[in-house]
Amino acid sequence: MTRAHNFNAGPAALPLPVLERAQREMVEFEGTGMSLLEHSHRGKAYEGVHFQAESLLRELVGISDDYAVLFLQGGASLQFAMIAMNLLHAGKSADYLLTGIWSQKALAEAKLIGKARAAADTSVDGKFTRVPTQAELSIDPEAAYVHLTTNNTVFGTQWHTLPSVGSVPLIADMSSDFLWKPFDMNRYAMVYAGAQKNIGPSGLAVVVMQKELIRAARKDIPVILRYATHADNQSLYNTPNTFAIYMVRNVLEHMKSLGGLAAIEQHNLAKAALLYGALDQDPDFFRCPVEHASRSTMNVVWRLPTEELEDRFVKEATKAGLVGLKGHRSAGGLRASIYNAVSEASIQALIAFMSEFRKTA
Amino acid sequence: MTRAHNFNAGPAALPLPVLERAQREMVEFEGTGMSLLEHSHRGKAYEGVHFQAESLLRELVGISDDYAVLFLQGGASLQFAMIAMNLLHAGKSADYLLTGIWSQKALAEAKLIGKARAAADTSVDGKFTRVPTQAELSIDPEAAYVHLTTNNTVFGTQWHTLPSVGSVPLIADMSSDFLWKPFDMNRYAMVYAGAQKNIGPSGLAVVVMQKELIRAARKDIPVILRYATHADNQSLYNTPNTFAIYMVRNVLEHMKSLGGLAAIEQHNLAKAALLYGALDQDPDFFRCPVEHASRSTMNVVWRLPTEELEDRFVKEATKAGLVGLKGHRSAGGLRASIYNAVSEASIQALIAFMSEFRKTA
Repeated sequence: MTRAHNFNAGPAALPLPVLERAQREMVEFEGTGMSLLEHSHRGKAYEGVHFQAESLLRELVGISDDYAVLFLQGGASLQFAMIAMNLLHAGKSADYLLTGIWSQKALAEAKLIGKARAAADTSVDGKFTRVPTQAELSIDPEAAYVHLTTNNTVFGTQWHTLPSVGSVPLIADMSSDFLWKPFDMNRYAMVYAGAQKNIGPSGLAVVVMQKELIRAARKDIPVILRYATHADNQSLYNTPNTFAIYMVRNVLEHMKSLGGLAAIEQHNLAKAALLYGALDQDPDFFRCPVEHASRSTMNVVWRLPTEELEDRFVKEATKAGLVGLKGHRSAGGLRASIYNAVSEASIQALIAFMSEFRKTA
Repeated sequence: MTRAHNFNAGPAALPLPVLERAQREMVEFEGTGMSLLEHSHRGKAYEGVHFQAESLLRELVGISDDYAVLFLQGGASLQFAMIAMNLLHAGKSADYLLTGIWSQKALAEAKLIGKARAAADTSVDGKFTRVPTQAELSIDPEAAYVHLTTNNTVFGTQWHTLPSVGSVPLIADMSSDFLWKPFDMNRYAMVYAGAQKNIGPSGLAVVVMQKELIRAARKDIPVILRYATHADNQSLYNTPNTFAIYMVRNVLEHMKSLGGLAAIEQHNLAKAALLYGALDQDPDFFRCPVEHASRSTMNVVWRLPTEELEDRFVKEATKAGLVGLKGHRSAGGLRASIYNAVSEASIQALIAFMSEFRKTA
C-alpha cells in the first residue's frame, strides 16, 4: 500500500501507527475474546480506555481539577447550541468574535436561544482574510461569555495572540487547531473541539470546561443537553462513542510518545513555514489571500491566477496522490489542511508538485 | 483467538465477518491509500458508504419515499429531547406508554420541554414485568404523538402486538429490538434506535421519520436539533459519525446476505425459545419474572433463589467465557441479551453452563 498524501480538512489524516493499532485490535481487544466495539461502556475493559483518554488529555495540556473533561457526541455544531442553552442565562447577552463561517454559525445558533451579538467581525463581502485586532473588539463587560474560533478552517486564518476579554469567561472552539501546540487552559472558561481534525475520527467532541461554569449553568433545559449531566456522570450518562474515544486515547498516547505538545508545535511550525515559503516564492501565481499575521498553521489556503488552473491543480494533484486540496465551497481556491498527523514528507511532496505544476501552467 | 459468548446489553456482539472486514479495511479503504476514518464526509468514497447504508435499510425494512432515513449522533437519549423539541407544538400534549426506565426517561425529558403524560404505566413498586393491554391505554386522541419503547432492555419485556392509537402519530424507540424481525413502517410516524445493540457500534442513532412530520415540526429550536436540518442535508449537515455509519452499512449488508429480516426473525425466535425453554424447565431455580406474553426475544432476564447465587453465577459464567450476564443495576438478577449477532451456539453454551451450575448450587 502507498499512503496518500492526505490534506483533507476533516475527517483528516490520522497517524499510521494509530490506524495499525486499531487494525490489530479490531477483532480481539486485549485478550477479551471480543472487539472493543462489543464491550459494554460500563465494563472494565472500556472504562480503562475512557479514563486513560481523559488523563492523557489532562497531562498533555496541563488541565487542573478545576476543569471537567467531557467526551460528547454531536460534534462542534451541537456545542454551538449547548453553549447558549447552558450559559445564556435570562437577561444576559453573549459576545461572538466573527472570523469565519463556523463562528457565524455559532452566533446564529445562539441567537435562536437567547441574546447574542457580534463583538467583532472582520468579513469583507462575506469573506475573511484576518482575525481582528484588540482595538476592533467591543466586548460587553457584562457578557455571559465571549466566544471565538481559534482557527478558521475555511478561510485559513488563526488567532496567534489571544484577545483580552477582561473578566468575561472566554470560550474557544478549537476544532481545527486543538492540540497543535501547548496552550494555557487557565485563560479559558471552556474549550471544545470536534475530534476529526487533529485528534481522532468523527462523531466526538471534546469539551474542557470550568466546573464552576458547569455548576452555574441553566437547569431548565433537557437533561441530555446539560453539561452537568455529562460532568456528573464522567461522560457515561448515556452510551458514548466508545470507538472514537478509544481512537482519541490512542492518538494522545502517540502524541505523548512524540514528545508532547511542545514537540508537535515545532513539527507543525516547520511544516507551515515550508508551505507558506513555497507560496511566497511565487506570490503572483500562488496567491495567499490571508494577511500574514493571521495565517493559519493548520489550513493553508491559496489561489491560482484562474479558476480553470485551480480545477486542473486539484485534478492533477489527486492523480499524483495528493488528496483533499480543493478549497471549501464557500471560499473557493485551494486549501491544504496540514494537521498534526500530516507529515513533513507530505508537505515536501506537495511543494514538489506545485513546482512542477508551475512549470506547465 | 477464542470468541467470548457475548451477552452484553449494548454495546453488544457484532457479527464476526463484519469485524473482520473492518479490520481488513482499517488502514487502507478500497485502494484509496487511506483509512475510511481519514476520508472527508463530503468525498465520493465516504458518500458511497453513507448512501448505501440508507438504501440497504430502506430495502431490508421496506421504507417508502414518504419517510426520511437519518443517521444522527447522540444516541436514543438525545432523541428523547429532539422528539419533544420538534413535535410538541404549543398547546399540544404527548402520550407516553411507560414500560421501563427508557420510556420513563423519554417522558421525563418531554416534560421539561412541553406537556406530556403517561397514557399507560405497568410499573409495580418501580419494576415492570409486562407491557400494558389495549384496555389499559388512555390515549388522548388530540395528542401530538404516542411514544412507546418496543423492547425494554432492563426488564426484559417486549411489545408483541402494537397497540392501537387511532390516528395519533405513533413513535417507537426500537433501540434494543430494531431489525430483529420484519415490521410495517407504515404503522409508525417515526421509529428510532441507538445502533449499539442490533446494528452497529455506539455513537449513532438511526431515525426513520415521515417527511410530513418533519415538515410540520417546530422551527423555533436550534438548527442542529431540527430533524428538518438533517433531512434536508441527508444527514450531512455536519460531520456524521462516519465509522459507525460504515459499520451499520456492513452489518446491513451482512443481514441481507443471511436472507434479510424474515430469516433473522426465525434465528432470533429459535434462540429465545431455547433459552426460555431452559428457564421454564426449572422455574423454581431459574425464575423469569416477566409475564409470558410480554417476554422479550432480545433481553432474557431471570432470578436465582438468592443474590449470592446470582453473584456466583455471573462470576463463574465470566470465567467460562460467558460475558455480560449481570442484570441491569436497577433490576438486579441476571440478563442475557441475545441480539441478532448472538449465535445459537452461544445460547447452547449458556444453557449448558446453567445446567452445570444448577447441579452444584
